Formats: sequence, structure tokens, C-alpha cells
Amino acid sequence: MSAVNRRIVLDHRPAGTPEAGNFRRDDQPAPEPGEGQILLRNHYLSIDPAQRGWISPGVNFAEPVAVGDVMRSLAVGAVAATRSAKYSVGEYLYGWFGWQDYCVAGEPQVIARVQPAQGPVSLGLGLYGISGVTAYLGLTEIGRPRAGETVLVSTAAGAVGSVVGQLARRLGCRVAGLTGSDDKVRQCLAEYGYHAALNYRSGLDAAAMNALCPQGIDVFFDNASGEIADAVWPHMNLRGRVVQCGTAAVACWDPAPLAPRRERIMLTRRLRHEGFMIFDHLERFPAVIAQLARWHQEGTLVFHEDIETGLDRAPAALAAIFRGENRGKKMVRITHGTRAL
Amino acid sequence: MSAVNRRIVLDHRPAGTPEAGNFRRDDQPAPEPGEGQILLRNHYLSIDPAQRGWISPGVNFAEPVAVGDVMRSLAVGAVAATRSAKYSVGEYLYGWFGWQDYCVAGEPQVIARVQPAQGPVSLGLGLYGISGVTAYLGLTEIGRPRAGETVLVSTAAGAVGSVVGQLARRLGCRVAGLTGSDDKVRQCLAEYGYHAALNYRSGLDAAAMNALCPQGIDVFFDNASGEIADAVWPHMNLRGRVVQCGTAAVACWDPAPLAPRRERIMLTRRLRHEGFMIFDHLERFPAVIAQLARWHQEGTLVFHEDIETGLDRAPAALAAIFRGENRGKKMVRITHGTRAL
Repeated sequence: MSAVNRRIVLDHRPAGTPEAGNFRRDDQPAPEPGEGQILLRNHYLSIDPAQRGWISPGVNFAEPVAVGDVMRSLAVGAVAATRSAKYSVGEYLYGWFGWQDYCVAGEPQVIARVQPAQGPVSLGLGLYGISGVTAYLGLTEIGRPRAGETVLVSTAAGAVGSVVGQLARRLGCRVAGLTGSDDKVRQCLAEYGYHAALNYRSGLDAAAMNALCPQGIDVFFDNASGEIADAVWPHMNLRGRVVQCGTAAVACWDPAPLAPRRERIMLTRRLRHEGFMIFDHLERFPAVIAQLARWHQEGTLVFHEDIETGLDRAPAALAAIFRGENRGKKMVRITHGTRAL
Repeated sequence: MSAVNRRIVLDHRPAGTPEAGNFRRDDQPAPEPGEGQILLRNHYLSIDPAQRGWISPGVNFAEPVAVGDVMRSLAVGAVAATRSAKYSVGEYLYGWFGWQDYCVAGEPQVIARVQPAQGPVSLGLGLYGISGVTAYLGLTEIGRPRAGETVLVSTAAGAVGSVVGQLARRLGCRVAGLTGSDDKVRQCLAEYGYHAALNYRSGLDAAAMNALCPQGIDVFFDNASGEIADAVWPHMNLRGRVVQCGTAAVACWDPAPLAPRRERIMLTRRLRHEGFMIFDHLERFPAVIAQLARWHQEGTLVFHEDIETGLDRAPAALAAIFRGENRGKKMVRITHGTRAL
């Protein structure tokens, strides 16, 4: 294999949110698979808020990406060469393939097969990837909403939140959303089935929260943390559940910023607060994806993709999601010399 | 019934922790039971940290005690007269009978029958009352410790904590305790089966916590909140559980004091934090009490009572528990003209 492998590597760690300048190109010859491995040609690269954590020091899920290494990323790629009995040339896979053209991978790097019969393979990064499966499992396993309860979603129009909103509505809940622009409020109401939505930049005092959730909140699906969460917690109902799925509203956790203590409300209202991390649930992917695909294909579950074109756009795309500029699951499509999907 | 009913009523609300001066005596003629009711003669009055909440304004479990009303309290009393088919004269009951000599009660005020065959009836307020049942259910239902895990208990030598420590040890856990004096540290180690215990007044930096819990913490049974909790949380292990059972270290929640945000550690370590309130679990009392009584009577579960004598000591006894002066379950024995148990 004599092709060039364009790679985007970490140049230096960001001080707060990532900027495009934290990364640089470092091209190398394309690698070759060893015994049991496959060569993937990437088609779609995922742009995820969690990537900030992977390049920051401090408490996190995983080892940080080393300076000089290819940026860690989920991707959808096609098998270009195989020395594994498990994967065939031409099939699409979803996994840890990095911000690069080509990736040599073994079985542990593969999360799921992407089925073109279920829709565009880009959905493998979003609705059928960690976004959709997180929404489904975080809501049903930790939030456990019952019909008639109120579910509030922060980042309500995001890749995860938009699916949470639709699933909660499907479960018979009253669904409210917090999002960061009036446009997204309209999108929540018109497309994602929210009964009510609010632009948190317009203020989150008690009157605004009471208007948004007049019956209080039984399940808070929180992707935000920060002052958004602080405004929500006092409105939790007895035996409410808070799903901590992300912390997008807080730029730096070292040291952890201060917030009003919650032990008393935890106790008096018998709340349950639990962190959810999708990579604890890899065995659930096939069944959840099959369910999400049925709903998507029958037209009752919408999902928006925000796709930029060109590998070199990945760093700026990551920076943009922290400014709230994306309108759906952010990803980058790689244009190869030959063809793009 | 012409007897006098000595009553201790709320005179005015405390600014912070309660003081004896927040209460006053207001004697009245003893009441008479109506149809379906019983007349109880109190023998033991419970002195509980939760009583602070019942006389404070702000977020709480229940309606606050009104100024001028008898102080709300759990008590063990004997049925002195009955107009109920359910209760017989002479039997001992545990329930909401207040800081007074006599109480007219209906079925909703009764929590459990107290069985003299299981030990002194004072145990009905403590080991066989909300302390012991809270320890058992909070630990097993929310903490869910597994053998080999580390359980940390704040207020480790208290009425609840001392039982939690012994139960966790019985379940095969490594058990560590935080308590407020060197004497109580010795008591934890010598009597309650803790593997390690620390006086939090000697400092709770990371080195001290690592020495106390070298394998990290899987279950944190928290009765304290405040800076004690803040020192503990960073040492929680992956998938750790925090049982919020009390908030004794925080005097005022209006407004809630500030603390380091926990959303990030909730997420990265997939923690579960849950409030536990014993009055949600009244139907569990008989079975749990029977289990605790078997262990207590075989001598493998110890319980200390700190009993003051005389109704008028109740206000000062309540103030004392917030200074950490009690050595076990605090209660007041009422001396009647006739006899005391």
C-alpha cells in the first residue's frame, strides 16, 4: 500500500475549549494490516464534545491523547483490506479509527457494523452510534420515565438530546427542552416533539422554569451541568432522577467550579443522580440500533446531521460545537481521490 | 383523666442549630382518646438530628412544626387507654407521640410495635427504630455493597453509622469511618468493627483519605455533607454509590452553601448518588427489626444508647447532639410519678 495517510495529530493541549490551532497535519504512508487486523478507509469522522476531555489533562474516562498522536475519534470506515476472518472487504464499520484517511484496526477498536440497509452509513456515527444509543439507554435505564411524568433535556436540540426528546414523547411523557438559540427552540418544537422549549440565554429564573415545567421535573437528562443545571435542580420532583450524560456547559474542571450544594435536596426529595457512559454498554448496541432503525425508517424518529466536507475541517468543526454552532450531529466527510459515499 | 400533660412546645425557630431556649414548657390537662384512638403514656423520647429540619423553614421532608405546638418527636410509649380494636392496654408502641407525657394517637401515628422480648423497650427508638432500619435499608438497598468493597461511613460512631459499620463488616467489606473525636475513633475500632477510623478534625487532605481508604471507596454512607463529603468524593471508585442519609455537618441550607461541582466525577466515574428517607419504607420495619434483633440477641450487633432522664432535658439534649456530644442514640427517659421502665 503506497497511498499517503493524511493524519490530524494533537499539536498541543487546549487551555479551555479546543481551537483548530491545537491540531496539525502529519502525513505518513498508509499502514498495512497485520495478522487478525483490517485496513479501514475512513468515510465519516465524528466530532464529539467528549473529545475535549480526551485532549485535556485531569479526571477523565480514558488516557489522554498524547501530543503528536492522531486525534482519537469515532469514525465510519469501509474495510479496504482484511487479514481477519471476522470482517470482509467492503463492509462498513463504526469504531475508533481516528482523524485520518486510513486506520489499521483489530477487533477491540470496532464498536458496531454499519448496515447500509438501515440508511446512509453516516447514521452509523450518530443515530445508530453513541448519540442514539446513549439517548435510548441513558433515558430508559437511568431516567426510567413513566407516562405522564415530565422529562427535561438540556442541549435539547443536540445529537443526543434531540433523540431523548423524541423517545420521551414516545413514552408518553411531557417533554421540555433547554437549548441555546431561538432557532433551536423552534426546531425542538417543530421537529423533535418537545411540548415546550426555552432558550437558556434568555434567563432561567424560577418563573421561567415554572413556566417551562409547571408540574416540576421527574427526569432531568443533563448534558450541560453548570448554571443551567443549577437552575433546574430546585424544580426536581420527589423521587426525581438526574441522568448525567455530559457536562458541556463547563469549560474547565481543574479545579472543579463551585455550585450550590445538593445533598439536602437529594435527601429531602429522595433524588437519584447517576452518571451514564455509553462505553459501559457496548453489548447493547445491536439491539438498540435495530429498534432505532425501525422507528427512523417508519418516519417517526428524525435525526439531523451537520456534515462538513474535508479531513482538514475536523479541528475547526470540533471548536465550533463548543460555540453551539452545530445543528445536529456534527461530522466530517472525508473526500478521497476515488469516490465518496 | 385528670392528670397533667407536661408538654414541650416550640417557642421560636432557631437561627442555626437548635438551642434549649427555642423551646418552653406548656402544661395542659391530659387528653382523652376518641373513637378508634388510643392514649399513650410516653416512656422514651427520641432526640434526632432531623428535628432541626422540622423546626426550620425551607426545603424539608414535612411541614414545619408550628410555633406553640408540641415538639414533633418519635417516642416509645405504653398504651394507657384504648378505644381501638388494634391496640391493647399495656403494649408498647413506637411512633409520633411528641415531647410530652401523654399523647392521643390514631393508627397513622404508630410506626411499629415494640416487643419487650427483643430487649429493653428503649431499643424501639434506636436499633429497632429509624436508626437501625435506616442503616440496614440505606446500606443494602442503595449502597448495595459487595464483599471486598470499601465502605466509608461519616458520623461513623452515631446511632445510624455505628450500625452501618457493623452491617458492612458483616457483609465482608473493608469498613472505614469518619468521626469527630479520638474517643469515637477508638470506639469505632474497638466496638463497631471498623477496620480504620479517622477523626475528621485532624484534617482530611488527600494523604489522610488515601491512608484511610487505600483502595478508594465503593460505598459512601454519608450522614454529614459539608467539607467532610467534599474530602471524600474525589476518592470514590468507578461505579461507586453515595447514600445520602443526612446532612449533619451543614447548619443552614437557605441559601445552599457552595461546594465543588460533582457532575464531572459523577460522569467519569459513573457514580450513583441517592437520597434515602426511612419514612418511605415503613412496610419494611417488622422484617428488618426481626433480623436486627436476632443479631443483637446473639451478641454480634452492638448498639449504644445515650439516655438522659427527665422530660425537661429534651431541648438541651437536642442542642447537644449538634455539638457531637452524644455517645450513641440520644434519647430522654420520662420519669412519671408512678414508675419508669
